[in-house]
Amino acid sequence: MTLDGTHDPDRRSWVETANDPETDFPLQNLPLGCGRGPGGGVTTVVAIGELILDAGRAAATGLLDGTAAEVVRESGRLNGVLARPGHELTALRHALTTLLERGSPHAAAIRDDGQMLLEAEQVQLLTPTEIGSFTDFFAGIYHARAVSEILVPGGDVGPNYRWVPIAYQSRAGTVSVSGHRVRRPAGQLLRPSGQPEFAPCEMLDFELEMGFYVGAGAEAGRPVAIADADRHVAGFCLLNDWSARDIQRWEMAPLGPFLSKSFATTISPWVVTADALKPFRAPAMPRAGGEPRPLPYLDDPQDQAAGGLSVQLSVWLCTERMRADGEPPALLLRSDARHLYWTPAQMLAHHTSNGCSLQPGDLLGTGTISGPAPDELGSLLELTEDARRPAVLPNGETRGYLQDGDEVTLAGRCVRDGFASIGFGPCTATVASADSLL
Amino acid sequence: MTLDGTHDPDRRSWVETANDPETDFPLQNLPLGCGRGPGGGVTTVVAIGELILDAGRAAATGLLDGTAAEVVRESGRLNGVLARPGHELTALRHALTTLLERGSPHAAAIRDDGQMLLEAEQVQLLTPTEIGSFTDFFAGIYHARAVSEILVPGGDVGPNYRWVPIAYQSRAGTVSVSGHRVRRPAGQLLRPSGQPEFAPCEMLDFELEMGFYVGAGAEAGRPVAIADADRHVAGFCLLNDWSARDIQRWEMAPLGPFLSKSFATTISPWVVTADALKPFRAPAMPRAGGEPRPLPYLDDPQDQAAGGLSVQLSVWLCTERMRADGEPPALLLRSDARHLYWTPAQMLAHHTSNGCSLQPGDLLGTGTISGPAPDELGSLLELTEDARRPAVLPNGETRGYLQDGDEVTLAGRCVRDGFASIGFGPCTATVASADSLL
Repeated sequence: MTLDGTHDPDRRSWVETANDPETDFPLQNLPLGCGRGPGGGVTTVVAIGELILDAGRAAATGLLDGTAAEVVRESGRLNGVLARPGHELTALRHALTTLLERGSPHAAAIRDDGQMLLEAEQVQLLTPTEIGSFTDFFAGIYHARAVSEILVPGGDVGPNYRWVPIAYQSRAGTVSVSGHRVRRPAGQLLRPSGQPEFAPCEMLDFELEMGFYVGAGAEAGRPVAIADADRHVAGFCLLNDWSARDIQRWEMAPLGPFLSKSFATTISPWVVTADALKPFRAPAMPRAGGEPRPLPYLDDPQDQAAGGLSVQLSVWLCTERMRADGEPPALLLRSDARHLYWTPAQMLAHHTSNGCSLQPGDLLGTGTISGPAPDELGSLLELTEDARRPAVLPNGETRGYLQDGDEVTLAGRCVRDGFASIGFGPCTATVASADSLL
Repeated sequence: MTLDGTHDPDRRSWVETANDPETDFPLQNLPLGCGRGPGGGVTTVVAIGELILDAGRAAATGLLDGTAAEVVRESGRLNGVLARPGHELTALRHALTTLLERGSPHAAAIRDDGQMLLEAEQVQLLTPTEIGSFTDFFAGIYHARAVSEILVPGGDVGPNYRWVPIAYQSRAGTVSVSGHRVRRPAGQLLRPSGQPEFAPCEMLDFELEMGFYVGAGAEAGRPVAIADADRHVAGFCLLNDWSARDIQRWEMAPLGPFLSKSFATTISPWVVTADALKPFRAPAMPRAGGEPRPLPYLDDPQDQAAGGLSVQLSVWLCTERMRADGEPPALLLRSDARHLYWTPAQMLAHHTSNGCSLQPGDLLGTGTISGPAPDELGSLLELTEDARRPAVLPNGETRGYLQDGDEVTLAGRCVRDGFASIGFGPCTATVASADSLL
């Protein structure tokens, strides 16, 4: 967790919007993305304030050179970029900081180029990597407990929960970035008659999660040791694991969720790098008395001390009526990544512990991140107690589950005294009707 | 299910081993594979008797022309080949039949080429497609019932089973073809103390399945109608869904199997095409009185009449000691693909019913195919009642679960009066120790 000059909060950018204390993308963030620019090419891009730097073009024109240029030189998705050794990604970060800092001798050249520093509207952001696989964990213990409570009042998490970072394979091919609408799925809904009917989902939900990307892969048969696991995590995003609760309830015994999840997952487009997040690492969730110590393959002092993450998370809802009335999105809940029972390193080490390989660019989700308080529950299932206590919006509308036209936004922000706050950018999608499915 | 001249059992090949009644690969089969030949190139290959035809080379040299040549002209995996419309794959089949039939004017040219018709040892067979996703179903009702019985004597399948083609996403990145060894996984094993220990799996099992490949894909939001679904199935293979029963039992509540499956899956390397299997289609499993009729999106008269498959399946075991003593593999069980409760078309239609996309080359597994008789149970879990009644091998060795050095082979063969029998080729792998994981 060595901090360096790139984390210095006093450094400012010549891109003025990057110096706004409210921006998600100050000079200290510099998240990586994959974008299609006005010329049609797909390249590595970097968010800075309200603008986007085409890093591939900066390398091609010599404004980035050496290791930094090598890292971003190839076009296409970020799988190859994220697979680079940590010190090379750090070198890129240093070079980008120098380039975008006030006083940079290259500021004029970048501005004058006309194609290198772009308005957000000029860039189509794509999924950062070709996501070869998407594994979703269940590491939010308050979520796991709340879900158990809804099924069995007073119920706790299962006996394996405190030993196993539980996960399932999810659908990589239906992950899309913020801004794409999400079609309500159709599926088998169990009716009071005891028989199912094929119909549009009536209990469409979001799940507030974070995602993280595998950087350096893991070979089959070569598990990643817990002490090394953080080095395989290249960066983080926000992740909305859309869930059809009615389909899920009926289909999931005994092999887990399938169609209730596979229709869509939304991620924020920016990879907030492990380097940028260094000031915001936190202790792993402490184990209370009676809770088991992690097994040795999941137990590392450094991971216990600083393997967690401190990220303030929130979920916002804007209904069709609110949009028509010009109202802003309403805050539904706040939570924090500190509420994860397992660290990213523990999840990644566990994933490889059976000999399973990981590829650069693979996506791992944390599972829903709920907190202990009633206004920290990270899904409508929990927040509305399965629609028994609908959420009331500022305009009087209520929601048990989502309706067509609802726009859901996840936000995440890292705040720590003495450091510049950084954010993830929005993870937003609007619910479209299931009409095309029927 | 229109049969044509390519199914005529009287046609013979000038490749004499293709005329052996015992061969899996007579002229009437012509399965497609992806192989690396002696020159190092990766190309579409075809099994004929004991030999392998480099179809890409046949196209490049003009021996295949027109549509057939276009289909196999690109090098690399078969994703693009299988995505072709059915009539183009049928045209390829006709062209290959003509080329390899006795009396073909090109026989001498093929033989003389020296690089086009290869010994099996000259070709490294790869996974036929780049497997973007691997979804595993649970469509063998006798398996589902046997597993329930082991957990709860007298137990039946769950209430959703007869309505929902149950499935889960499995791990595409660890699927490998026959011949690669499979490393025993390590993982959390629950001990009698009530606490888990991280150790090599002690209950390693096989699962007898079939797999099928998506040909033409399905766009997100455009479900495939049940009446069209068979047209999206390009071909079939055998599939061993290796399972670590001890890891599985402990990890799988509530989200399903994860590390107990993700370490390895073995498939037979040949894609036995939907065309080749036409004579061996069978009625869907009839629903008994009291069993529900499939919901409309899974119900099609043609699928009910001929959407099933008749494939004789068997599993063979050869231990290290048997190999040392020169003994042949021992038959463990026989089963048949007729014992699937859901047809491939139903599985594929269900998969897309929520709007989920499918890509050409995606792999779908059927789930374990057990039959109703005690010697038709498709895994050791069932066959040995969870090691309570170990299987006794001809040399007196016993097996509750698999030991290191055990070689497991799945075989599949289609037999019908008036037709040439065709087979799938072996799906074989040997269990290696977990040493590298610890």
